[in-house]
Amino acid sequence: MQFDRKLQLATDLYQFTMGNVYLQDGKAAEEAVFDAFIRENPFGGGYTVVAGLEQVIDYIKGLRFTKADTVLLKKNHPEFSEEFLTYLENFKFEGEIYAVPEGSIIFPFEPIIRVKGPLIQAQLVETTILSIINHQTLIATKAARIIEEARGDLVMEFGLRRAHGTEAGYFGARAAVIGGCAGTSVVETEAMLQRPSMGTMSHSFILSYDTEIEAFEKFVKYNPDNAILLVDTYNTLEQGVPNAIAVFHKALAEGGITGHYGIRIDSGDLAYLSGEARKLLDDAGLEDAGIVASSDLDEYLIKDLKSQGAKINSWGVGTKLITAYDCPALGGVYKLASIDGKPKLKVSNDPGKITNPGCKKVFRIYGKSNDMALADLMTLEHETIDVNEPLVIFHPVYTWKKRTITNYYVREIMVPIFEAGKCVYDTPSILEIQAHLRDEKEGLWPAFKRMINPHVYHVDLSQELWSLKQRLLSEVE
Amino acid sequence: MQFDRKLQLATDLYQFTMGNVYLQDGKAAEEAVFDAFIRENPFGGGYTVVAGLEQVIDYIKGLRFTKADTVLLKKNHPEFSEEFLTYLENFKFEGEIYAVPEGSIIFPFEPIIRVKGPLIQAQLVETTILSIINHQTLIATKAARIIEEARGDLVMEFGLRRAHGTEAGYFGARAAVIGGCAGTSVVETEAMLQRPSMGTMSHSFILSYDTEIEAFEKFVKYNPDNAILLVDTYNTLEQGVPNAIAVFHKALAEGGITGHYGIRIDSGDLAYLSGEARKLLDDAGLEDAGIVASSDLDEYLIKDLKSQGAKINSWGVGTKLITAYDCPALGGVYKLASIDGKPKLKVSNDPGKITNPGCKKVFRIYGKSNDMALADLMTLEHETIDVNEPLVIFHPVYTWKKRTITNYYVREIMVPIFEAGKCVYDTPSILEIQAHLRDEKEGLWPAFKRMINPHVYHVDLSQELWSLKQRLLSEVE
Repeated sequence: MQFDRKLQLATDLYQFTMGNVYLQDGKAAEEAVFDAFIRENPFGGGYTVVAGLEQVIDYIKGLRFTKADTVLLKKNHPEFSEEFLTYLENFKFEGEIYAVPEGSIIFPFEPIIRVKGPLIQAQLVETTILSIINHQTLIATKAARIIEEARGDLVMEFGLRRAHGTEAGYFGARAAVIGGCAGTSVVETEAMLQRPSMGTMSHSFILSYDTEIEAFEKFVKYNPDNAILLVDTYNTLEQGVPNAIAVFHKALAEGGITGHYGIRIDSGDLAYLSGEARKLLDDAGLEDAGIVASSDLDEYLIKDLKSQGAKINSWGVGTKLITAYDCPALGGVYKLASIDGKPKLKVSNDPGKITNPGCKKVFRIYGKSNDMALADLMTLEHETIDVNEPLVIFHPVYTWKKRTITNYYVREIMVPIFEAGKCVYDTPSILEIQAHLRDEKEGLWPAFKRMINPHVYHVDLSQELWSLKQRLLSEVE
Repeated sequence: MQFDRKLQLATDLYQFTMGNVYLQDGKAAEEAVFDAFIRENPFGGGYTVVAGLEQVIDYIKGLRFTKADTVLLKKNHPEFSEEFLTYLENFKFEGEIYAVPEGSIIFPFEPIIRVKGPLIQAQLVETTILSIINHQTLIATKAARIIEEARGDLVMEFGLRRAHGTEAGYFGARAAVIGGCAGTSVVETEAMLQRPSMGTMSHSFILSYDTEIEAFEKFVKYNPDNAILLVDTYNTLEQGVPNAIAVFHKALAEGGITGHYGIRIDSGDLAYLSGEARKLLDDAGLEDAGIVASSDLDEYLIKDLKSQGAKINSWGVGTKLITAYDCPALGGVYKLASIDGKPKLKVSNDPGKITNPGCKKVFRIYGKSNDMALADLMTLEHETIDVNEPLVIFHPVYTWKKRTITNYYVREIMVPIFEAGKCVYDTPSILEIQAHLRDEKEGLWPAFKRMINPHVYHVDLSQELWSLKQRLLSEVE
């Protein structure tokens, strides 16, 4: 296994600082509820795709502190009490975790992960959970946007060299596949994803031969099943494509191509070059030859190239996906919702940053006639919905904006992951997660999936949750 | 150790695909030279700070393939020959690596790492080297820019929760410290950095108590050496700061503060709030109390806040640093410069993308009178400079732009790292690397360090290298 590294210290110091106070102050065992959620969808989009839960589960399952850890903490932090260090040495997560399964679509302010447990434990896991979820959710959402604009074309993830280190490349590739990519170039993912990694050749391969055509011949000879030739090292249309055609003709005549074949264009005007290359290939009778494009692609460029009629069959996406270039951080936060039975909210001068109090859950409401999502309703944990009654929901700020929903069914979007410290969840395979996202996207109207200026999906509060929030706000003011 | 994970498969598939061809085609042993370099400085800046070499060295030293690796590769990639898989099982890097030490300043097109060795080996290490160097160099450069604008104030790295996963947070924190940060919140770094991690408290700590003042009292009680109170949970000036003052007064009177103390402001108008908070603290006789600011800070905001006279002593920088938010990918590439004794260049329609051929080195030229860097000169490996003679350098494109340099000395910026597969380099400590960067920055005129529109530092080619490049270009055309 490549990723058996333990994450107990992959956190911010202040989690320990606070834990030390809680323990000495007798507060450690108070029951706390924290929600991990986002405040806005990334990329100006209309939805967010959850990813990273499997790694959060692995983290929580393996969360222990060694003697070496506490020796280091004691040496560097004399403020930590012996009681606290001993507590860490015996640490085991004993709380409850509910979460939205990977590949699900969520919206701002909905809990992605809800942690309920002793304050000291529920606080301690904050940073690591956020670091994992913020990263993979960001990349999965970016991938989903790219897949949406590729309109069924194959998209491959090729960004490892630009990732924020090799682990970001590895888990970023995982998230990209969850988001809908057909595969990744990262060899290390083969065991995890249960599928071969993908790739072609680099410019240095061509340069290492005296001539381009010799490089092509040798590549095809040893890769008869996947003979994709990079044609832009010297001159794409005047040399690269004609050389590729000559090599393909010869190899096809000799039975030297037994699978996919085609060309890759990695630079220049992809709309023009792919169109001209397509003509050259077709004129040479090579209608089967595919055209792969790469070169700083993202959803905007893919949409634009397709609108120009670019003749591209599959897309290699790198930097812009693996770094989520236009929005490289997801602002997921982890906020206290309840302590010792008392619901809490975080006030802010910015009304958009005020949190929702109490232990909550979220219902997604679907129309019975078409299985499309109509809205989400956030409620307190004990609330239920009688689907035989009309459901009145209202905007949480402009409360006069009301909708009455009939002929519907509901689904809770969070499921139990840990109960009393024990994992009760079977993680699906990556392909199952990918398929789940496809279902989720099918249940979402196109207006919410638009690349630019999407319609805002309604996430309303139940009357009881709304009233609780108003009461707490007025108490603070 | 947290990071003993092996990286042999943390690469793109095409490295193996090409290696398989090279081996079967009898080219594997041809001597190749590859350069890793950038084409432009990130963030629109005038310089780039190298980081990540230590992890590259660890990677090369540990680069082996297990039987499990080759079994997986064979299963997923039937095109790989037995000969190739056996080669991998016996793989050991046998080449030479020169590199620019960490904490050094480099400029576009200068080799950061130069790998010379059997083609199959020098090709295979491309992706992993780039992934490591691109990430850490990016973050170190961002940190250096922030440090420059903080003008001597303490800057702390707090971004783990927004990093691209926990490893990006860990090595990102390393790079941030190389760039000049005084520390990081990431506990996991304590062993690596040989210093304590840093932190304060979160809003949830305040909320977990019935009142803000109780939370403050308890925090100070158990953290007398570092009593930094987060004052913006309810109302910074009307409640948070007055409560903090009351708690500090009481604790100081009782000897309950034994080290640093002060406040942290994490939201709102930091210029206004810090100024007013400073007045309140000073009026209360607490001139010693520090003010820490955080809240989406970067070099632009820090410069702006300082220009407004914000009363901030130290800066907690998170998201914008750890993700290099405004330029989240460094475009470092790895290009073939020579094969089998033949210098190579990659042509491109974009003249800015044409590479420099041959096995090269770079001299930095310093004025003897002031030890300031004057220009860099890239030469072929065998070239020398006689510092007793005037040196004529010229612009590589506008060749009529000439400078004659006298009274100078030179330093080669690359040093040997591996010779015949053996590491010959002692990695300095992080503090030594950080100090090296300080020296490097001192030797660079302020015009090159400007945040916006910096002067462009000259990187010229020797006459011999320039002539070689022109000859190869004309051969291609």
